[in-house]
Amino acid sequence: MDDEKFMAAAIDAATEGVEAGQTPFGACIVRDGEIITAAHNAVWSDTDITAHAEVQAIRAACRKLNTIDLTGCVIYSTCEPCPMCFAACHWAKISKIVFGARIADAEKAGFSELAISNEQMKTLGRSGVKIAGDFLRNECIKLFETWVGRGDNRPY
Amino acid sequence: MDDEKFMAAAIDAATEGVEAGQTPFGACIVRDGEIITAAHNAVWSDTDITAHAEVQAIRAACRKLNTIDLTGCVIYSTCEPCPMCFAACHWAKISKIVFGARIADAEKAGFSELAISNEQMKTLGRSGVKIAGDFLRNECIKLFETWVGRGDNRPY
Repeated sequence: MDDEKFMAAAIDAATEGVEAGQTPFGACIVRDGEIITAAHNAVWSDTDITAHAEVQAIRAACRKLNTIDLTGCVIYSTCEPCPMCFAACHWAKISKIVFGARIADAEKAGFSELAISNEQMKTLGRSGVKIAGDFLRNECIKLFETWVGRGDNRPY
Repeated sequence: MDDEKFMAAAIDAATEGVEAGQTPFGACIVRDGEIITAAHNAVWSDTDITAHAEVQAIRAACRKLNTIDLTGCVIYSTCEPCPMCFAACHWAKISKIVFGARIADAEKAGFSELAISNEQMKTLGRSGVKIAGDFLRNECIKLFETWVGRGDNRPY
């Protein structure tokens, strides 16, 4: 139940982003059952190619908690974190990643992904992070469809 | 010769960072033989675990050039970009990565790296980025030694 609530917060953030002309990605960081922060991708609005939803959420959580150590936090992401975002989770010591759509779904929507899965990154990097994928995947894929349907979508 | 000049700018940025209590990483982004930006790691000063030197340099270059597309740019980094920074270079469409020390050198200095090399990332992600490693490696390794010698070094 709680997982659904937290992923819903990530989806809501992504939806806000899409409505503001951003790409359809959202993330939410939770600790001890409480939402610390939710953020959407801001690459276009900030002219910052690193401003993915997960990076934005991690930055905001660091600021809010005044620490670079997010041990015990879970990140809910509407899409499987790209290798940049996976590695950002690693550096932040995030304990668990829960994601909806897959990197392949983002590729289908036009994004030029480095197609390395979170499981591959975890195995190669010997990371201890827990990963739960395909959670509310269909709901998360819908974000791409809504975004493409707007006609002003700009992948990168 | 130019490569040496640009790596020297990255080393200078790292040195400034170390003197300011930051970790010993610097990066410099160059286009058409001109330095666009040089930056050092700012994880501690910004309480932002994503503020690696390469990410800082990419953000600054995006702002300065008012674009998220850094095609044609070369990044000089005192240390092999971690997977987060490698993927950030990919998203930014940086054409070439030149690095000094290796991820293994950063690990030796105490950083909890995801030990996935740039060559591995490139192969797995089918990236077209050019990579030149071990450039002025000894000079770049010295940055770690200077940093460790200060006694106030905080890896993460």
